Amino acid sequence: MQLPPARADDRRGGPYPWGVNATPSSDRFLRALRRERVDRTPVWFMRQAGRYLPEYREVRGDKDILATCREPEIAVEITLQPLRRMDLDAAVLFSDIMVPLAAIGIEIAIGSGVGPVVADPIRSAADVSRLRPIEPEADVPHVLEAIRLLRRELQVPLIGFAGGPFTLASYLVEGAPSRNHDRTKALMHDDPGTWDRLVGALGDIVLGHLQAQVEAGAQAVQVFDSWAGALDPEDYERFVLPATARIFEGLAPLGVPAIHFGVGTGELLGLMRRAGGDALGIDWRTPLDAAWERIGHDRAIQGNLDPAICLASWEALRRKALGVLERAGGWPGHVFNLGHGVLPGTPVANLQRLVDLVHETTETESR
Amino acid sequence: MQLPPARADDRRGGPYPWGVNATPSSDRFLRALRRERVDRTPVWFMRQAGRYLPEYREVRGDKDILATCREPEIAVEITLQPLRRMDLDAAVLFSDIMVPLAAIGIEIAIGSGVGPVVADPIRSAADVSRLRPIEPEADVPHVLEAIRLLRRELQVPLIGFAGGPFTLASYLVEGAPSRNHDRTKALMHDDPGTWDRLVGALGDIVLGHLQAQVEAGAQAVQVFDSWAGALDPEDYERFVLPATARIFEGLAPLGVPAIHFGVGTGELLGLMRRAGGDALGIDWRTPLDAAWERIGHDRAIQGNLDPAICLASWEALRRKALGVLERAGGWPGHVFNLGHGVLPGTPVANLQRLVDLVHETTETESR
Repeated sequence: MQLPPARADDRRGGPYPWGVNATPSSDRFLRALRRERVDRTPVWFMRQAGRYLPEYREVRGDKDILATCREPEIAVEITLQPLRRMDLDAAVLFSDIMVPLAAIGIEIAIGSGVGPVVADPIRSAADVSRLRPIEPEADVPHVLEAIRLLRRELQVPLIGFAGGPFTLASYLVEGAPSRNHDRTKALMHDDPGTWDRLVGALGDIVLGHLQAQVEAGAQAVQVFDSWAGALDPEDYERFVLPATARIFEGLAPLGVPAIHFGVGTGELLGLMRRAGGDALGIDWRTPLDAAWERIGHDRAIQGNLDPAICLASWEALRRKALGVLERAGGWPGHVFNLGHGVLPGTPVANLQRLVDLVHETTETESR
Repeated sequence: MQLPPARADDRRGGPYPWGVNATPSSDRFLRALRRERVDRTPVWFMRQAGRYLPEYREVRGDKDILATCREPEIAVEITLQPLRRMDLDAAVLFSDIMVPLAAIGIEIAIGSGVGPVVADPIRSAADVSRLRPIEPEADVPHVLEAIRLLRRELQVPLIGFAGGPFTLASYLVEGAPSRNHDRTKALMHDDPGTWDRLVGALGDIVLGHLQAQVEAGAQAVQVFDSWAGALDPEDYERFVLPATARIFEGLAPLGVPAIHFGVGTGELLGLMRRAGGDALGIDWRTPLDAAWERIGHDRAIQGNLDPAICLASWEALRRKALGVLERAGGWPGHVFNLGHGVLPGTPVANLQRLVDLVHETTETESR
């Protein structure tokens, strides 16, 4: 694929501005995840390679996201797009949490604005048997190829990722995005044996997929158990924590830092810490200082600006972002991020200024 | 309107089984809200008069909900339906939080499965001027008439209700149900003067509407600020708490207990307590004992079974319901409810058994 020329609104010009004169940001992100001192607080954004970027919409068109993910050159291009715009401290592979499930033969369609729809939802022991183990080199060669290509280009660390057990299970069981997750919750309570097999199988797939991403070159990983916050702590502990813990235990020997993320998890943070992750990613509902207290300062933390605020004025955004930094309190181990993915209507300029604000503010403070 | 004959699956027979031989449940609910001793823990369900009932679907058909609310006899019938099925300790008026806004001239359509859609969203100071004060006898006579009719029939207390400032504002600003509330949050941050006028005007409408409901006969009220949990504590305190506090202050002289409800409010409970309410209604994410600690035992609490569990087997539902009762710990002031509204697919039998379980379990315990 031909890379597009630099856009007039690129702030640095050239397709890979960090390639030649790399800033010292190259290991800021990984150091923060290890809770080491950093020159500035690192920043990246969930969905930083996304629909809010005109060049993303141009490349994506109305093409199916899973088909897009299967073309490594396009995935590379999309992954790099936000890095040409902003001084981000990490890249995150353009992919989707449903990619490994589609790759092992689950029929999934992801409509724009609809989310993942599963043709034959998984609701019985027999259905669970359809989840075969993943063989990454055979099943997701395009993911691994994209990672290898990216590592040649990138001067900042590359984050690989996968979905968490509850979130993946919910899509498979409900057959579509669900507000209430009622079929999923019914399955876990009414047929815990099948549920355990389901999240066990998903855990193996996630672990295999993440291991392969790391072997291909991913320098950090994030587990998105985005919807785990729909559970009460008792159900999370019984039905999700064990499968999640096995993923993080399996990741530990690889020696790359792992981030554990979910939305609305204020009541679950202690349990999510137990499940694992060098860093916990939290949303904006829980003030960062309170969240860190619950998690413990022997773990790193990622977050937690409300993504909706990025659609407000710069003044409002600035105030809220400074509030996040203040609550981080200068402890080592903070990775600045939003509390959830960048929203499609977000002005690019707001994110650009936000990255610089975080860097400038924390640089001043650390001296 | 002709009331339909008793259904074959009525468990007690007759359209108003509690009318003649009223159980001592008649003031259980109000006593619990005042944290007085009760013979059994009272139970009602948000959306107990709803789509999960076949007789509800029969009466509603595909008629617009706002049009349905304007017919007092039908509202009365729908309100009574669940009471014929279950030994509920309170009735809740069949209505909608958008009713008073439609009544003062805001053009609103509520599509089935879509939620409220506002033809001309409110996003500027000029838009806010369209929110004129409510004159209940002229604007919502059907609501008051339904309440008067219901009080003649009911042997259990009748709950009136209204939406909370953030939830109503979000529908008006976004123009439709919103996952991210980004326009609403942008308005509050970028034009706080207009925001304050908006929630101030909404607060006056809510208060006027609730006062009129109480004068017509409602014996308790609930403020549904369902989506307030989308805010961080700082924004809730600055942008929602003051308007909410004025509502509860205005209600206090009426001498009826008021319930303050929201979803995903674990981090906001202390602030919601400050805003007001004799009882706080909470969802299932926060364990009831932890929530009550945060609220303080000098307030009553309502909740908090996960409504999704009502679609699971009775065994699972029973176990989770007993867990809620155990966490209530025998303190006076617990009203059993779900953590959000009854879901449309809920089996009626599950709710019937649930009501009896709560009564039987707590009766045994209190002796």
